[in-house]
Amino acid sequence: MDHPFADLIGFTVSRDTPGQCRSEIEARAALMNPHNVVHGGVLYSLADTCMGGALYPLLDEGQLCATIDCSITYFRPISGGTVVCEAKVVNKGRSIAALEAEITNDGKVVARAYGNFSIMQRRTGDQGTQAVGAAA
Amino acid sequence: MDHPFADLIGFTVSRDTPGQCRSEIEARAALMNPHNVVHGGVLYSLADTCMGGALYPLLDEGQLCATIDCSITYFRPISGGTVVCEAKVVNKGRSIAALEAEITNDGKVVARAYGNFSIMQRRTGDQGTQAVGAAA
Amino acid sequence: MDHPFADLIGFTVSRDTPGQCRSEIEARAALMNPHNVVHGGVLYSLADTCMGGALYPLLDEGQLCATIDCSITYFRPISGGTVVCEAKVVNKGRSIAALEAEITNDGKVVARAYGNFSIMQRRTGDQGTQAVGAAA
Amino acid sequence: MDHPFADLIGFTVSRDTPGQCRSEIEARAALMNPHNVVHGGVLYSLADTCMGGALYPLLDEGQLCATIDCSITYFRPISGGTVVCEAKVVNKGRSIAALEAEITNDGKVVARAYGNFSIMQRRTGDQGTQAVGAAA
Repeated sequence: MDHPFADLIGFTVSRDTPGQCRSEIEARAALMNPHNVVHGGVLYSLADTCMGGALYPLLDEGQLCATIDCSITYFRPISGGTVVCEAKVVNKGRSIAALEAEITNDGKVVARAYGNFSIMQRRTGDQGTQAVGAAA
Repeated sequence: MDHPFADLIGFTVSRDTPGQCRSEIEARAALMNPHNVVHGGVLYSLADTCMGGALYPLLDEGQLCATIDCSITYFRPISGGTVVCEAKVVNKGRSIAALEAEITNDGKVVARAYGNFSIMQRRTGDQGTQAVGAAA
Repeated sequence: MDHPFADLIGFTVSRDTPGQCRSEIEARAALMNPHNVVHGGVLYSLADTCMGGALYPLLDEGQLCATIDCSITYFRPISGGTVVCEAKVVNKGRSIAALEAEITNDGKVVARAYGNFSIMQRRTGDQGTQAVGAAA
Repeated sequence: MDHPFADLIGFTVSRDTPGQCRSEIEARAALMNPHNVVHGGVLYSLADTCMGGALYPLLDEGQLCATIDCSITYFRPISGGTVVCEAKVVNKGRSIAALEAEITNDGKVVARAYGNFSIMQRRTGDQGTQAVGAAA
């Protein structure tokens, strides 16, 4: 599937184990805020997408998911190098799943994120645009 | 001040009343997720930056702020139009401030965000790169 | 309905306008933490319950709600007096609602809380014990 | 130290490893909400206190901590048995620490909580009542 925003900011997503996901981005100049460190929204975007990637393989045929809410806590600024996010499903109910993600840079934990996702049935005839929330 | 990430994703920030801020972005194709709605990270980035913009005018000379944590709750997807974020300071202590932001699209509230920011003294000799957190 | 925990810690809940709720508690000695200020869990309990009280009148016949997640941000400690919480529904979707609450003490805002609630159909034959989450 | 609210609702706190803490409560009738499951505020109170207990042993002489904000996500209701909370420090900066807690009941994870705490210098002459936030 095309992912225009992932292409714009430049992250990649890879899955292997269902319930887990890994995403990566290079801390290049275009991602910096006025203080010359990576903007917090980049880390958030990485985490939110990575959470979706962890949850999707656990869904039934015909189900979709969307972020209900997601929070991120920052520990230290990033001025360069590779940023890696690893997300995992910590609980999966019938209609809601909870996820956590850890973001590292040069082997140090720089942020952690916590999300709740809604699990929905894709409606017949839609292409997933009306039923879904803002992320995924 | 240069803001490379704001330029990359394309948002603008404007302040008038100290303690409040407004940011805007056009919901163009490059900001979409695979479901053809604006990626949640775009809305988060708008909110986090806008909160920083609301808090800065309230700081003393020589102070900086950085996001401790920020959460966002999504109400409905965005498939086009202008996205507007309005943030305000809801409490300002000596070293921590709390902020809230509302995000609208075509007059409908699409998300709300809640952040806590740290207020720090800029250290002599630094340019604000080491002392600050990931956002702002 | 009986509410044993409300009785134990001593709060009252009153509703008038659907979508809004008010709860109150006296900051008595039994609610203090080791620092002689009201324990943060008291304020949280007030807010979580008050949010449920705001949402219930908006539900359809046969629906229940339960807290998905709730966060609280503290601004100042409380050492006595009456604590008042006012909650309101900020968005109500088909299966999820978002709520906010403000907690005041002697006319000052001491905390704000943000919750997401799940809206569910009560299943035939249950008394609401299996289907619901931890709060309400 | 006396802890009136812990006595009122009936939880115990035990520490062994600095940076970690364990608290427990029996899911007795007085802690129930109108749906006959343990009130979410009980679980929150357990988590918030347990986080403080995990952080305290890592503080320097003369330092205090207080909850900036704390969120809790609920996975399943509790109708009886022992509720155990285990908290740990996931990051400790100079003035802010991040903590996570897991709450279990009969061996199942029923909730997870995420907090940010402020680390402050106790001021000369105070007894820790004015300088601290609502929890701890």
